[in-house]
Amino acid sequence: MDNKPLILVTNDDGIHAEGIRVLIELMNQMGEVWVVAPENSQSGMGHAITINATLHVDRRIVNNGPQIEYSCSGTPVDCVKIAINELLPKKPDLCVSGINHGQNASTNIIYSGTMSAAVEAGIQGIPSAGFSLCDSSWNADFQGSQSAVNSISKLLLQNKLPLGVVLNVNIPKSQPKDIKGIKICRGADASWHENFDKRKNPQGREYYWLTGDFINQDRGKDTDLWALENNYVSVVPVHYDLTAHDVISEIKTWSL
Amino acid sequence: MDNKPLILVTNDDGIHAEGIRVLIELMNQMGEVWVVAPENSQSGMGHAITINATLHVDRRIVNNGPQIEYSCSGTPVDCVKIAINELLPKKPDLCVSGINHGQNASTNIIYSGTMSAAVEAGIQGIPSAGFSLCDSSWNADFQGSQSAVNSISKLLLQNKLPLGVVLNVNIPKSQPKDIKGIKICRGADASWHENFDKRKNPQGREYYWLTGDFINQDRGKDTDLWALENNYVSVVPVHYDLTAHDVISEIKTWSL
Repeated sequence: MDNKPLILVTNDDGIHAEGIRVLIELMNQMGEVWVVAPENSQSGMGHAITINATLHVDRRIVNNGPQIEYSCSGTPVDCVKIAINELLPKKPDLCVSGINHGQNASTNIIYSGTMSAAVEAGIQGIPSAGFSLCDSSWNADFQGSQSAVNSISKLLLQNKLPLGVVLNVNIPKSQPKDIKGIKICRGADASWHENFDKRKNPQGREYYWLTGDFINQDRGKDTDLWALENNYVSVVPVHYDLTAHDVISEIKTWSL
Repeated sequence: MDNKPLILVTNDDGIHAEGIRVLIELMNQMGEVWVVAPENSQSGMGHAITINATLHVDRRIVNNGPQIEYSCSGTPVDCVKIAINELLPKKPDLCVSGINHGQNASTNIIYSGTMSAAVEAGIQGIPSAGFSLCDSSWNADFQGSQSAVNSISKLLLQNKLPLGVVLNVNIPKSQPKDIKGIKICRGADASWHENFDKRKNPQGREYYWLTGDFINQDRGKDTDLWALENNYVSVVPVHYDLTAHDVISEIKTWSL
């Protein structure tokens, strides 16, 4: 028992989401599972942390099983920080985040609570991956996700990942038999073209909903969006050293 | 008049903060200034966006001056998106964020609303920088910031910045005469060692405040933290392509 790896499971859709339930079941086969996940949906929270308000955590039993579960009032990144520093008996051997209800490929990483939780675990020195299914419905079918989640998590437990890197895994909305395999990719150079939906409230005050179209102008066949469109699971190695080292020497030539 | 550059000014401390007031005054000397900033403090919001709630904006007159000002109910990234897509007459020639009350060097970029606003402007193709003063008090003295903000903003208006890069500028808490100059740096490899402050509320329920120590184990003299400790303004070029391109070939050797 004591030799089982310790696995932290989190997400951004909240502790009751179907995606994290599937992930917990899969991780229960691999190690001792601790769940620390948001009370409520935290989609789009990026790498936000709670510094001007308090946090609380509650012990939960959502499903039967060997896992130990806590909900946290904060963001996905808060969940990882409080798990590692307050709740878990020791530093986990692996952190998995998801399975997100909805795609987190390309530049969506930067807005994604799912991926920010995985990145935070990476910053804390823990092998880590975020998993997302390209289906945002609450009752999405996660059967096509299981094989990839299993094989990638097993490799991460073998400490295969270079320091400073976490994995962004996206899974097409397909049945297991239709998924062609796993592709290691770069994130596609795509972006949101916003289209704010302007409305008036019952008192006549204007307000907005953030909407938009996600436009992929990247024709490369080595991108995550290409892989997903062609029914492959995409795996993008993600770094969190944000220094653009290659342009330092150019900027040094400026007369500042 | 029509040839004046259009400058978007935002921050994460909120539209009433002293730091953004100083930044607006400086930018008024360089172009036509539009301010779109959060109603309230959004420190630590990282790259969060508002997707499960509505947004509103209000025309404001906080100080006299030629600038046009709006507050927005959302995050710093929401401010940039709604400014560019709904409020400004055209795409701005420059976006400046700050001046933040408090340091945003090293890995703090990832949690910083100030820098996330600058990064979002970069994603939208706008030359952009975040400015932070190493003094988090509400009445911080921004005199030491003015020269660096001016010279860096002028260079950005000349389209000096390579595509996919924005600048993270930190300014030491010093009088102008004591600042030795500007250093182009990499972000130091430092991180937070969290120390959650656990308390009980009047009803006996436990809650936490997120606190911690920021530990710099990076001995390099080419880092932003070294520059700041030695009374230089630090300028770090920041990229937002999060693919770790250099490890793709290694991960392709895994048997997935």
